[in-house]
Amino acid sequence: MRVLVAGGDGFCGWPTALYLSAQGHDVFIADNFSRRRWDEELGTESLTRISDLKTRVARWKELTGQEIGVAVGDLTDERFVHELIGGFEPEALVHFAEQRSAPYSMIDRSHAVFTQVNNVVGTINLLFAISELAPGCHLIKLGTMGEYGTPNIDIEEGYITVQYKGRTDTLPYPKQPGSFYHLSKVHDSHNIMFACRAWGLRATDLNQGVVYNVQTAETASDSALTNRYDYDGIFGTALNRFCAQAASSNPITVYGVGGQTRGFIDIRDTVRCIELAANNPVEPGEFRVFNQFTEQWSVLQLARIVERVARVLDLEPTLAYLKNPRVEKEKHYYNAANTRLLDLGLKPHLLNEETVERLLLTAMENWDRIHPETFAPQVNWRRPHYK
Amino acid sequence: MRVLVAGGDGFCGWPTALYLSAQGHDVFIADNFSRRRWDEELGTESLTRISDLKTRVARWKELTGQEIGVAVGDLTDERFVHELIGGFEPEALVHFAEQRSAPYSMIDRSHAVFTQVNNVVGTINLLFAISELAPGCHLIKLGTMGEYGTPNIDIEEGYITVQYKGRTDTLPYPKQPGSFYHLSKVHDSHNIMFACRAWGLRATDLNQGVVYNVQTAETASDSALTNRYDYDGIFGTALNRFCAQAASSNPITVYGVGGQTRGFIDIRDTVRCIELAANNPVEPGEFRVFNQFTEQWSVLQLARIVERVARVLDLEPTLAYLKNPRVEKEKHYYNAANTRLLDLGLKPHLLNEETVERLLLTAMENWDRIHPETFAPQVNWRRPHYK
Repeated sequence: MRVLVAGGDGFCGWPTALYLSAQGHDVFIADNFSRRRWDEELGTESLTRISDLKTRVARWKELTGQEIGVAVGDLTDERFVHELIGGFEPEALVHFAEQRSAPYSMIDRSHAVFTQVNNVVGTINLLFAISELAPGCHLIKLGTMGEYGTPNIDIEEGYITVQYKGRTDTLPYPKQPGSFYHLSKVHDSHNIMFACRAWGLRATDLNQGVVYNVQTAETASDSALTNRYDYDGIFGTALNRFCAQAASSNPITVYGVGGQTRGFIDIRDTVRCIELAANNPVEPGEFRVFNQFTEQWSVLQLARIVERVARVLDLEPTLAYLKNPRVEKEKHYYNAANTRLLDLGLKPHLLNEETVERLLLTAMENWDRIHPETFAPQVNWRRPHYK
Repeated sequence: MRVLVAGGDGFCGWPTALYLSAQGHDVFIADNFSRRRWDEELGTESLTRISDLKTRVARWKELTGQEIGVAVGDLTDERFVHELIGGFEPEALVHFAEQRSAPYSMIDRSHAVFTQVNNVVGTINLLFAISELAPGCHLIKLGTMGEYGTPNIDIEEGYITVQYKGRTDTLPYPKQPGSFYHLSKVHDSHNIMFACRAWGLRATDLNQGVVYNVQTAETASDSALTNRYDYDGIFGTALNRFCAQAASSNPITVYGVGGQTRGFIDIRDTVRCIELAANNPVEPGEFRVFNQFTEQWSVLQLARIVERVARVLDLEPTLAYLKNPRVEKEKHYYNAANTRLLDLGLKPHLLNEETVERLLLTAMENWDRIHPETFAPQVNWRRPHYK
């Protein structure tokens, strides 16, 4: 299958591109390297040493004989998108090419506007280009479980059947996103759903949980293929950041009481989920939604697991409960469905001590690359008048 | 009350500014005149002859002694918004300043992107400026009934209480908008709801129905104050367009079978609804939603009413059923709540033959300004591959 991976140089995109290539698909990467630039902006970098994309795909070809094409450009650039879709004519388009950090989107007005314009316009450009140049292409779009927020009823996969005043309808699941980033994904979902209905496009929206772990079989097979490891307060997410903190003798920082519960997924399952979606396309006009996570954890549960494994490695981990920089419920009901990818054959890598140990060891090996000052949450959700 | 009317030169904004000024409020208008430019782009113009904004406010001052301040600028321009909110410090901000035509947003990719970026970024800029410079300000935002689409259950005012698998929650009402314009309003609603929750802002979202009629007591009081009358296929909406068609001996164009049912409101009620919202502000942190329409009509019902009144005026109206250029259900359940503005004291102007007759007479008086070639729907919702 011809698969275009937009954002194929990033944390999820790069392992996905390699995995799909290893399965024999014809993979093409589009990226504008904005993820690398945001590190420069924020004064941080991947904990692991990563190669540039040219080196990455050249090494992959040496090792496997598989060619991965590359186009460097921006999805908000209409001409780039037109040439990309018209030139490659993808059968599946995996769309990771968005600004994906909630704190980054909350830095200030200009980061909020950038996040929404970048994500929404890039996706609209793809929808128009697909409809004109590759109408059969299956769009596989990365959304987030954070689109749902924390409702007091069960979270279903994209839709909910409501019985109301004697009538029934199946409606898009109501969304309560908690940052300008999460909002941008909700906007995307609505836009894509409309394009499926009005234009007969086919799309799968993958509402992904928080991704942890770093390497897949492919990225671990050679140092030039190594995946990035984000650990800072802006792009680093709960489990991976906790491991970097424990490994570098810094406190594991829990926001508030740590009762925030979310869906989590191992990156080795992320790449497999993408392939399952691609191998099982939807009919024209259908907007399908999968919740792409394998387990629910509270932030405090994860911190405790990292603490325990760190002790086994003779580290001396400590926990710090910080005033929550986010506006979110710290204790809440949370029960989200995630059966549809399992039904397609996903065999989850559930979180275990071995994975945490490997993350801790990776962080310990790279201790000299850690900038401890970037651990702290530097972005506050609140505005001046509402302290 | 100090009230800023953003988009105060437009079809709803201008009568609202005058009405609020007539009630003794201190009114300030911000506008970038984009509505007038879109007419130039599309080769159409208001059926009524309208003055420029400078002349309008000067005449209003001559007639009433009331001063209406004006700032010319664009809400997507951060600096303009900062100076506007910081300088005037509004107690209420009525936000009409968006691209408001569904067909315009569906012309092509660039109009879709323009509509979403213009509307979403303008609103985000207002949210940030309010939170910094006028945190107590009550944002009164114009949404649209079109955000809801046509679900098979009753439409409530912004929220729905769902009982699901033994649990209950009150959630944002699920949205199924039918154009990039309607989608932009859904994006706005989510962004504003978040800003209320996270920052403690106060906002009322007015999901307005299709507005008909043209003049209010204030705009009718002097020819220099006349309101605009849109009748073309892009900006003209059902009832007003039908009257211009019948008055100029052109067929009344019904899309599809005409069973599309929507909420409608007389512009004289629009201005009153805005004042009711302003006079009854919400608490900090609250995102309130009103459905701002007074009656439900199907498109065909309206066409029949116009046909009947036109005959009384010795016109010879005809109906033409056109292939629907939109993607929408032409027969569907529709039952939307609209009690909250009535509870605040709204006394609706229900549609009657006198109003239709006045619209027909206005169109007949201005027959030489009608460009009949702009009546036809020039924008098709469908994309090439899906004819």
